[in-house]
Amino acid sequence: MKVLALSGSLRAASINSAFCRAAARLAPAPLELSVYAGLGKLPLFNPDLEADPPRAVREFRAAVEGAGALLIASPEYAHGISGVLKNALDWLVSFEGVIHKPVALVNTSPRARHAHEALREILQTMSARILPEASLTLPLLGGCVTEDAMVASPDVAPRIRDALGSLARSLQTRSAPGPSFPLD
Amino acid sequence: MKVLALSGSLRAASINSAFCRAAARLAPAPLELSVYAGLGKLPLFNPDLEADPPRAVREFRAAVEGAGALLIASPEYAHGISGVLKNALDWLVSFEGVIHKPVALVNTSPRARHAHEALREILQTMSARILPEASLTLPLLGGCVTEDAMVASPDVAPRIRDALGSLARSLQTRSAPGPSFPLD
Repeated sequence: MKVLALSGSLRAASINSAFCRAAARLAPAPLELSVYAGLGKLPLFNPDLEADPPRAVREFRAAVEGAGALLIASPEYAHGISGVLKNALDWLVSFEGVIHKPVALVNTSPRARHAHEALREILQTMSARILPEASLTLPLLGGCVTEDAMVASPDVAPRIRDALGSLARSLQTRSAPGPSFPLD
Repeated sequence: MKVLALSGSLRAASINSAFCRAAARLAPAPLELSVYAGLGKLPLFNPDLEADPPRAVREFRAAVEGAGALLIASPEYAHGISGVLKNALDWLVSFEGVIHKPVALVNTSPRARHAHEALREILQTMSARILPEASLTLPLLGGCVTEDAMVASPDVAPRIRDALGSLARSLQTRSAPGPSFPLD
């Protein structure tokens, strides 16, 4: 049950990247969460390259396709999602491997509402499936901003574990054998 | 009276890039409109590089600083502005040369409302000054999608000229000698 975490920031000390690494350490079995390290290597999106995508794009798409779910954490820059993250998502817009992909959305700054709402709109437009039960907003600004601090925090760590537990249950329910006809 | 045009698409046949080139040909004197060709060469935004920005970033910032106004035209990808454009704007967020910079916003697809609204919010947050009188929405999808067609169109060309004329008047008013105390 693989989960691919995407951080929208390339900053070495990024809170969102730290969150993704902390989540990788806290993920309960059978979840296996890995942080995608290649967003900074993607070329800027150019629709003319879609016919023969560059290697970094093919690797990114393969990682997305191979994951049962995505976990996305983005900073907010000037009331928008980061260009780094939007650029990565632009490469997925015409990629069928993202359709119906379960996504857990993380907002590490409750004061940042614009980027989070924009991200929700964009992902829904891409036909990804945002899982509210696995998404969370954490007031991490001002304290608890490193991976170790998050893992050690008696307040934050259980909330991350809970959200990931919900994610695991959602994926189990989805992958369980069930009726083969549509129920809705 | 220099205007720097930014197209949010790297596609060779981009309608937004064609619009920018058409605007360069239609700009009435004393406006001199040039299309910035370097957005695709910018690295992905990394706050850690702010202390010593890469050359492509320094060149972009110098071009923005040297322009009396910006004209921005962005496609909408999955109900968001393009990652290419957001990445360029992310490099300007902490750059003081963008503060109070007059901006004409162009929407070449009236059906695309999300990206246009997000762009407005982002630019206002960056303290740029959007000029409503110089901004325009043009229903270009489905026809009149090349630079030559726009310049030749008896419907589209006058609207572009009018908006650029308004931009010129706004810049003239702003640069004219006036009272040195605040009026509002």
